[in-house]
Amino acid sequence: MKIFKNSINFAQAERIAQGKLIKVNDSIINSAASLEQADNSSIAFFQDRKFFDSFLNSKAGVLIIPKDEDLSKIPQRNYILCEKPYLSFLRIVSFLLEKETESVSGKKVHPSAIIASSVVLPENINISSNVVLEQGVRLGDRVEIDANTVIKKNSQIGKGSHLFPNVVIYPETIIGKNVQIHSGSIIGSDGFGYLWDGKKHQKIPQIGGVIIEDEVEIGANVTIDRGTLGNTIIKKGTKIDNLVQIAHNDIIGENAILCAQVGIAGSSEIGDNSILAGQVGIADHIKVGKKVTIAAQSGVSKNIDDGKVVFGYPATDMKLQRKILMSMRELPEMRKYFHKLMKKDKK
Amino acid sequence: MKIFKNSINFAQAERIAQGKLIKVNDSIINSAASLEQADNSSIAFFQDRKFFDSFLNSKAGVLIIPKDEDLSKIPQRNYILCEKPYLSFLRIVSFLLEKETESVSGKKVHPSAIIASSVVLPENINISSNVVLEQGVRLGDRVEIDANTVIKKNSQIGKGSHLFPNVVIYPETIIGKNVQIHSGSIIGSDGFGYLWDGKKHQKIPQIGGVIIEDEVEIGANVTIDRGTLGNTIIKKGTKIDNLVQIAHNDIIGENAILCAQVGIAGSSEIGDNSILAGQVGIADHIKVGKKVTIAAQSGVSKNIDDGKVVFGYPATDMKLQRKILMSMRELPEMRKYFHKLMKKDKK
Amino acid sequence: MKIFKNSINFAQAERIAQGKLIKVNDSIINSAASLEQADNSSIAFFQDRKFFDSFLNSKAGVLIIPKDEDLSKIPQRNYILCEKPYLSFLRIVSFLLEKETESVSGKKVHPSAIIASSVVLPENINISSNVVLEQGVRLGDRVEIDANTVIKKNSQIGKGSHLFPNVVIYPETIIGKNVQIHSGSIIGSDGFGYLWDGKKHQKIPQIGGVIIEDEVEIGANVTIDRGTLGNTIIKKGTKIDNLVQIAHNDIIGENAILCAQVGIAGSSEIGDNSILAGQVGIADHIKVGKKVTIAAQSGVSKNIDDGKVVFGYPATDMKLQRKILMSMRELPEMRKYFHKLMKKDKK
Repeated sequence: MKIFKNSINFAQAERIAQGKLIKVNDSIINSAASLEQADNSSIAFFQDRKFFDSFLNSKAGVLIIPKDEDLSKIPQRNYILCEKPYLSFLRIVSFLLEKETESVSGKKVHPSAIIASSVVLPENINISSNVVLEQGVRLGDRVEIDANTVIKKNSQIGKGSHLFPNVVIYPETIIGKNVQIHSGSIIGSDGFGYLWDGKKHQKIPQIGGVIIEDEVEIGANVTIDRGTLGNTIIKKGTKIDNLVQIAHNDIIGENAILCAQVGIAGSSEIGDNSILAGQVGIADHIKVGKKVTIAAQSGVSKNIDDGKVVFGYPATDMKLQRKILMSMRELPEMRKYFHKLMKKDKK
Repeated sequence: MKIFKNSINFAQAERIAQGKLIKVNDSIINSAASLEQADNSSIAFFQDRKFFDSFLNSKAGVLIIPKDEDLSKIPQRNYILCEKPYLSFLRIVSFLLEKETESVSGKKVHPSAIIASSVVLPENINISSNVVLEQGVRLGDRVEIDANTVIKKNSQIGKGSHLFPNVVIYPETIIGKNVQIHSGSIIGSDGFGYLWDGKKHQKIPQIGGVIIEDEVEIGANVTIDRGTLGNTIIKKGTKIDNLVQIAHNDIIGENAILCAQVGIAGSSEIGDNSILAGQVGIADHIKVGKKVTIAAQSGVSKNIDDGKVVFGYPATDMKLQRKILMSMRELPEMRKYFHKLMKKDKK
Repeated sequence: MKIFKNSINFAQAERIAQGKLIKVNDSIINSAASLEQADNSSIAFFQDRKFFDSFLNSKAGVLIIPKDEDLSKIPQRNYILCEKPYLSFLRIVSFLLEKETESVSGKKVHPSAIIASSVVLPENINISSNVVLEQGVRLGDRVEIDANTVIKKNSQIGKGSHLFPNVVIYPETIIGKNVQIHSGSIIGSDGFGYLWDGKKHQKIPQIGGVIIEDEVEIGANVTIDRGTLGNTIIKKGTKIDNLVQIAHNDIIGENAILCAQVGIAGSSEIGDNSILAGQVGIADHIKVGKKVTIAAQSGVSKNIDDGKVVFGYPATDMKLQRKILMSMRELPEMRKYFHKLMKKDKK
């Protein structure tokens, strides 16, 4: 159950849900919950018939239900009738969450934060405990920086962005507006580049940067390396799950989806709106087109054209790969038969 | 070599080891070590005959050795004769480690810790440097929170639990008794859920929680996401290795073993006592039964019944998969033969 | 673009680049950049002909170009003619970076750092905000410890080493000279070892240590576990990329390369100069020889001899594996044919 700082009444809920309110009493809502966890200050939703019993037993103050539900067969309670109950529920939750974010007003800076002399803080900002902001850091309006996060020199964070606790931003990183970076993520660490000089691995200095565009969301414990000379770029609206590795000079297009534990080697490009499922690996200097879907655990070592759906190792057309996997189950039998034929042949 | 804060004498060691002491002098033990690293204040053990020379040369103050060792053929020294030397050694190490943990007595709170006004600390507790405890956090007796760890609002940590440095616990997380969470792990970050609205990925608010039950151990840099509406749950006694990803609404049964770099997508269930080897991936909405073993790097996209042993991609019965892999080595030869047959056929 | 604290003049640049200066004016250089980003205080290089237009349009103060470039066909500007422009460019960048490191002179300790009473700091050192150094920690000359990094008791860091923000070093860890450890990496957490006693997983105490030898570089969010009894060892000159897992008692040889998301299970050995590409998994108790190359995503469950090049799961000789993968594409067709033959056979 999520308890919000703000509350709404039934009439507001009806309007935001874009539904029709049927009520037996009136109250206010300040929490959202599952059918089981809801109490009389909660809003909950019922959509999937297999949860009908949970619905009947729910203690929610008001329930969003399908608009074609037969009201004569369910108890008289507070309902909002909607075409898509889950979507309407999300609208209400999002409304209440946004109100909380808007409430970053005034300058809240915890006294334990260590802020370099050159940093100018905007009027509306929230800097939490033990945050470190080095020289030259620039923060936009309504930025929130959570406890123990470190932003190194000359980096900038666009307005409305939120960095959760224990994030590290290396120097000269550029982060856009309304970006979310979850705990433990490291942005701008050195790319992995060495030249073998016959005796040891000489480090290739990594002096490029990282650009994270607007509305990107980055999960927990993600690593995004800085470019060698140019920049590593994550374009607008892309969403990155936990424990993903993005190497130096990668360019990730707009609105891409990178699921957990994906790894992309250096200088590769992922096209707009592509989806990489969990644990996918992309080799270096690869171009993945737009609207490509790559199934979980696939390994990509060749360029992929726009719109393709691929999987396996090496990643291949989905239909062919399915046939291959199906055939593999018969491989031991085929092998036996093959040995029999060979034997016959030799006679 | 591990040096303990407490020490024991030979008689105590004999009792804890459940063995028989043979001694030439008397002393105290305050460290445990390998045969090579031990000194005269150390206890060490000898079990595997291939380390016989190391045993003869060891400087350990007392040695745990097999009870059937021929004492006439080895030097006169301090020995504890045991049926299973390694297990007896572990018993002594565990005894000394537990004594250290018990010694969390009195309230130790480093002055740099930032503790919200509503947090009530129990009598026996150890809060280290720069720890941040937000409003509404509740801690049980004998909890240890290491340096730079952040616990966000309304989370609770059960008695005897230990959080290592730089851990982040998101709001409203519930952690049971005697839980260990190693450094860099992130518990309760947002699940990865979006709805494509035709123009951009709309975030699905993640307002569920995380429940970690008693005696769970979590390695370093693990990520466990909060539920979308309900909870992500890790049940009693389960052990999780480093860099594991657990997504929203996953339910991991009791006493499961998740090895390093395992990734489990959302809303999946892992049964009690199942073992997932390193780098295994589980798709979303999958049910893995009880006492299932999944070999390293396997990919699971279908439910798995209780007691099965599977591997490969897609994860298949171990015996079949072995045959398939064996057959694959002959595949190039089979292909050649197949081409020959085809050619003949065409004539 | 990387702006350096120090600058050099053209004559110095000529000498370090080991090239020949041709100049139209004189200035100083305090930054290095790509052709596009360079300004008149920058050095840049031109080597690959496909960037000829960027070269012509570059605003760099001085450009390193191939020594056989026809000067009559390019504008009169400041050039350094070199045999290998990229290498010469790297030499200059490295020179300027080293000067910055050398400039760790004097004792800089941020007042927020929490340093135990027994820690003796050398004359030249840089300890940043909120760093925690516990009892018994020993630091060499010119060590840099970045913000929010925690070094637990009795660990030692050799001279010239640099720990980036939010690193955690567990107790009794030994780190050599000129080691770099990037943000979020955890060194010395407990190995993953349990004994099932029929009712629960009993923890095997992990009382060994970790030794990181000289000139090792460790990426971001890496995890290296301490040994059970002996040590986990990373030998001299080895480079480890982001999100790599190294388990208890592993021994990684000299000058090895471990790419991102590699996972090595317990008690395995990797030989000197071996290269493990991204997402490779190594089972426990495996010996990988020297100068072995393992392709991305491979799974290794058997020992590998010196010099081998392997890939796949299970990792096999590269040539054989390529043939297998090629044959697999024809497998569905082979299967069809096989069914036809079987049918004929039955008649």
